[in-house]
Amino acid sequence: MGGFVIRQAQPADWPSCWAILQPVFEKGDSYPYRGDMDEMDARRLWLESPLRCYVAQDNGGEVLGTYYLKPNQAGRGDHVCNCGYVTAQAARGRGVASAMCRHSQQEALALGFSAMQFNLVVASNTGAVALWQKLGFEIIGTLPGAFRHDELGPVDAHIMFKTLA
Amino acid sequence: MGGFVIRQAQPADWPSCWAILQPVFEKGDSYPYRGDMDEMDARRLWLESPLRCYVAQDNGGEVLGTYYLKPNQAGRGDHVCNCGYVTAQAARGRGVASAMCRHSQQEALALGFSAMQFNLVVASNTGAVALWQKLGFEIIGTLPGAFRHDELGPVDAHIMFKTLA
Repeated sequence: MGGFVIRQAQPADWPSCWAILQPVFEKGDSYPYRGDMDEMDARRLWLESPLRCYVAQDNGGEVLGTYYLKPNQAGRGDHVCNCGYVTAQAARGRGVASAMCRHSQQEALALGFSAMQFNLVVASNTGAVALWQKLGFEIIGTLPGAFRHDELGPVDAHIMFKTLA
Repeated sequence: MGGFVIRQAQPADWPSCWAILQPVFEKGDSYPYRGDMDEMDARRLWLESPLRCYVAQDNGGEVLGTYYLKPNQAGRGDHVCNCGYVTAQAARGRGVASAMCRHSQQEALALGFSAMQFNLVVASNTGAVALWQKLGFEIIGTLPGAFRHDELGPVDAHIMFKTLA
């Protein structure tokens, strides 16, 4: 298994990130982005537009996961940040998502954010919900049928929130 | 008083819209956008980027209010729309906000949306909260201190949601 480090993503990391993101977007059980999303749109969305993008990389140089961090709202709401995390299928069970989430909370504080919000945590994605709860996030509310799951159809989505400072 | 109609905004409506929006953004008690927001950024945000933008106009041609309508999320979440409404200070009390919200629900259905979500309804803006509740929106959850009110400091913000179809 071996350990891994989390560092800011570089443009050269994009192919590795896309190889991780594309199957997840295509699967349609966790992120809203279309399964046939254009790679350049995905690159803008994940790597370029957010305030920060990070990768988890193992000792052999392989990218195991990636996350972005950005303000969740403009101006008077920009003290609350938003993150999205994806772990490579082959790296599941190694604590990558958990480590990325803990890392993102530290980074958010260092960048001046005081809270973190997830806007659309798919309720049927029970592993993710449980992990975020374990890491201190609270379900603020549940949006009825707000996510069109590729297999299950319309499912509820949670808004989750954690005050960091 | 007299009646008013609600119609899609045209580029020529922008100066009237900006004259309504700018004081509201500056006041800092309802929308997160910075008080010193650049006019071109505001035009892009309110008039150009959303799927639709509308104005309420009285019989004399004066713009009394404006609202935008757009998907609240990408792809698998794009059946839920989001709107923002602002009424001109001088037109308060004439039912403009209420009429715009009812209009937006009809438009949303016609455009294929099945629900509407407000992401940051400032809890201290009790008039707005009560109006949306009267019009069928439910408080899904409350984000602690998610809005930095210019006078009150950090205040809670509600997420409100209505299933349309």
